[in-house]
Amino acid sequence: MKIAVDAMGGDNAPLAPVQGALSALEEIGDLEIVLVGDVDRIKPLLRDKPRQTRLILHHAPDVIGMGEAPVQAVRRKPDSSMVQAIKLVKQQEAMAVISAGNTGALMTAGLFIIGRMPGIERPALSALLPVMKGWGVLLLDVGANLDPKPSQLVQYGVMGAYYCQEVYGIPNPRVGLLNVGEEPRKGTPLARETYERLRQSDLNFVGNIESRELLQGRADVVVSDGFSGNIALKLTEGLARDLMGEFKKVLLANFKTKIAAWMLKDGLMALKRRMDYEEYGGAPLLGLDQIVYKVHGASQQRAFHTAITLAYSYCHKHTQDRIRERVREEEANQ
Amino acid sequence: MKIAVDAMGGDNAPLAPVQGALSALEEIGDLEIVLVGDVDRIKPLLRDKPRQTRLILHHAPDVIGMGEAPVQAVRRKPDSSMVQAIKLVKQQEAMAVISAGNTGALMTAGLFIIGRMPGIERPALSALLPVMKGWGVLLLDVGANLDPKPSQLVQYGVMGAYYCQEVYGIPNPRVGLLNVGEEPRKGTPLARETYERLRQSDLNFVGNIESRELLQGRADVVVSDGFSGNIALKLTEGLARDLMGEFKKVLLANFKTKIAAWMLKDGLMALKRRMDYEEYGGAPLLGLDQIVYKVHGASQQRAFHTAITLAYSYCHKHTQDRIRERVREEEANQ
Repeated sequence: MKIAVDAMGGDNAPLAPVQGALSALEEIGDLEIVLVGDVDRIKPLLRDKPRQTRLILHHAPDVIGMGEAPVQAVRRKPDSSMVQAIKLVKQQEAMAVISAGNTGALMTAGLFIIGRMPGIERPALSALLPVMKGWGVLLLDVGANLDPKPSQLVQYGVMGAYYCQEVYGIPNPRVGLLNVGEEPRKGTPLARETYERLRQSDLNFVGNIESRELLQGRADVVVSDGFSGNIALKLTEGLARDLMGEFKKVLLANFKTKIAAWMLKDGLMALKRRMDYEEYGGAPLLGLDQIVYKVHGASQQRAFHTAITLAYSYCHKHTQDRIRERVREEEANQ
Repeated sequence: MKIAVDAMGGDNAPLAPVQGALSALEEIGDLEIVLVGDVDRIKPLLRDKPRQTRLILHHAPDVIGMGEAPVQAVRRKPDSSMVQAIKLVKQQEAMAVISAGNTGALMTAGLFIIGRMPGIERPALSALLPVMKGWGVLLLDVGANLDPKPSQLVQYGVMGAYYCQEVYGIPNPRVGLLNVGEEPRKGTPLARETYERLRQSDLNFVGNIESRELLQGRADVVVSDGFSGNIALKLTEGLARDLMGEFKKVLLANFKTKIAAWMLKDGLMALKRRMDYEEYGGAPLLGLDQIVYKVHGASQQRAFHTAITLAYSYCHKHTQDRIRERVREEEANQ
């Protein structure tokens, strides 16, 4: 099983993706990784490491920056690590691609090079958020499709549910709709129509989810228009970071509080881990015809490692084929 | 200056509104309060208190429940504390009304009984959120207008800026637009058009605010469609509550952690206060022709007290007249 890793994507590239690749190779015996990027910058990072025959380097001299306009960047930089990595998947030289680079460019390159899954109107960007109880919640879309149709949101429910079932082993995943109230008739015309369609689908639909309950584990998959989903994702990240930062200030205020912090360290570390996207690895761009994983831009080694193992499991279980079948059935039922 | 308080609204009524009213009367010498509600339930709460000549009781036997459908509730319960309190303002027997009751019903009753401010297309529900640095951020709309037009969002910017300037004394308030990216061309057609109009207005427009920065104090007023604004508000409340809860569990895990908690108590209490909506009191329904304040449903005495003092300041400074004038000017400029 071969997976392509964009070695130049994200704030900590190439160190973090390279380290994540090496540790994933140690964990999974039949995994091969193609590191795509500037070999002059990657090779020095491998110098002191034992030689790994399952690690392949693929030179790509160019990099797409985090702030570049997606469409132009993908068009003008065919030799970028991201575009080259996606091409490896398209040419079936790798089963999946993992990148922490520019999200918009990743979706754009995915659409241009790989294309949509047959039957899917618009692919979605998903994100796995930490919850207070349970394994997490998959929120989609978080920014690929700002103005979706109800039929597209139902497809997100279908793909999200299959993904959770196959990759995380959640039986009969609960699907919710992000909305401004719990009652069925709440929200915009889009939300109301989507509610009805989800209710009539054969998904395990648990109704509207208000954002105050988003992280309480009442649903495994929450579908949303890309605008509100993006607001919810970034607010969760920002507020968790800000609040943890404020706690930290309290803990480091003086000698006495530092002793207290030391006394609390086990519990605090466990809480920090739970709120940390590093633990969650990444989430797929669902609805592309092949497997593309987005890892958080600020990721360190561990997030890359986890994302590679998730993508491995995704490939291994033929999840993509099952989602494709399910979308075809859904279409036939319409 | 006379203010009407809905004594039956919110989870802790009538105790919390009554206590808040009494303490506000102690603080402000020329304040009079009309407590509107079931006198049989209010009177026992006043029994042990010194007689307060500036406190007036207005009997309203009925209550609108938190879960009731707004339009029906307002129509069917003319003798409810909320409807009666708003009527006092309409009849100019009070200058402002304060309620922690059903938000939708409060907006509906406000629209039916008081009506819109001339020139305002749709009133907005505002909410004051805590920020990591600074005084707070006024977010509007948070749920009254789910599908607004750009012109309506610009009006929210105007009203919000004037409110902050007059009531909180913020000079030249910075106005931002809640959006999925910082760059000007980001977002839905609504967001892009609103961006342009805000940029051309004479507001102190600071551009798009991503939700991860919403609580960092980069803007004093953030305008949003009611759907995303509601998602952002409830997520902030929910996540702050959840994280504080998790942190509390760490502190109370065992004997050792409890000692540590005791060592940290000053810093933790200060942080808790900062994240607590009780400190913020409430926020007005901007765009109604008279002054209606919404207090959080879970409020205790302190939130009512603060809201009453804010509404007092609002009336005292003739803020409503200034907003009215400003809206008229804005209309003349179109």
